[in-house]
Amino acid sequence: MAINLEEYIATIPDYPSPGILFRDVTPLIDDGAAYQEAIDQLAAYASEVGADIICGPESRGFIFGCPVAYKLNLGFVPVRKPGKLPRETISCKYDLEYGSNELFMHKDAIKPGQRVVIIDDLLATGGTCQATIKMIEQLGGVVAGIAFIIELDGLNGRKNLEGYNVKALLNMSDK
Amino acid sequence: MAINLEEYIATIPDYPSPGILFRDVTPLIDDGAAYQEAIDQLAAYASEVGADIICGPESRGFIFGCPVAYKLNLGFVPVRKPGKLPRETISCKYDLEYGSNELFMHKDAIKPGQRVVIIDDLLATGGTCQATIKMIEQLGGVVAGIAFIIELDGLNGRKNLEGYNVKALLNMSDK
Repeated sequence: MAINLEEYIATIPDYPSPGILFRDVTPLIDDGAAYQEAIDQLAAYASEVGADIICGPESRGFIFGCPVAYKLNLGFVPVRKPGKLPRETISCKYDLEYGSNELFMHKDAIKPGQRVVIIDDLLATGGTCQATIKMIEQLGGVVAGIAFIIELDGLNGRKNLEGYNVKALLNMSDK
Repeated sequence: MAINLEEYIATIPDYPSPGILFRDVTPLIDDGAAYQEAIDQLAAYASEVGADIICGPESRGFIFGCPVAYKLNLGFVPVRKPGKLPRETISCKYDLEYGSNELFMHKDAIKPGQRVVIIDDLLATGGTCQATIKMIEQLGGVVAGIAFIIELDGLNGRKNLEGYNVKALLNMSDK
């Protein structure tokens, strides 16, 4: 019987702050068969778009991107918060509703011309993803595709990633 | 030809602070064949000790633990920093050289009697791992084994995990 991945997403109102409906993927990860199904779907997409390497932002991007890299026998590039990567890095700042974030990537992580697939758990506004794209392209990589477990409707995430090949396994409401 | 994983570990002196020799696993993750070899070795160990579920601390534990869970068709339990898990949690505080850390796990992440294998990149003093063990046992899980890519000699990590089945793929000096 087919697994309905949506049944493994927990929904928590007012987390981490009032008015936010948090979509929690931990029940999906906790279940061997559901996790297997999600990774297989993401890996099929990454293979279709011709991935040479997989990239994911800290730290839920690691939970979905790493098994995809393993399944396709590819390397994985972690996108990290400040102070986590010990060698020469490039970085990208991006604005949040309040304040800003800065993400980092090792300079030697991606070779020019490599086809990179970005994987993360959730597409909201797409800010993290835009910063990741910018760094990949700065290093000469080609963003072959971007895949998420969940795309939240109503936050313009897909519009903010226009021009890129974007895949989501599930579409869910942000309200 | 066999892959020598040690060749894929970068060593950075005085990071993150003076006197610390940082062992960086990112070159290993970046290389598809080396990453495959490391995961296959960890998965063989987890299978041998009869893992029902894999557990790993944020966030390098995700990079190695998640593909092992995927390969063995098991679930994965993330151990996280404060403010990251939205549902009911248990937590464990542990001391660092300066200050302390607190780690969290969802209360429903592990079922009583489940055989858990903990996976992380590096065994130093074992503080993170001790906190993880404590939470797993509090939830009724059995720590079937603990596996690392690198064990640092000279920091008493293995001694601090006495009584548990501990495996490291590489032994390296902390100096």
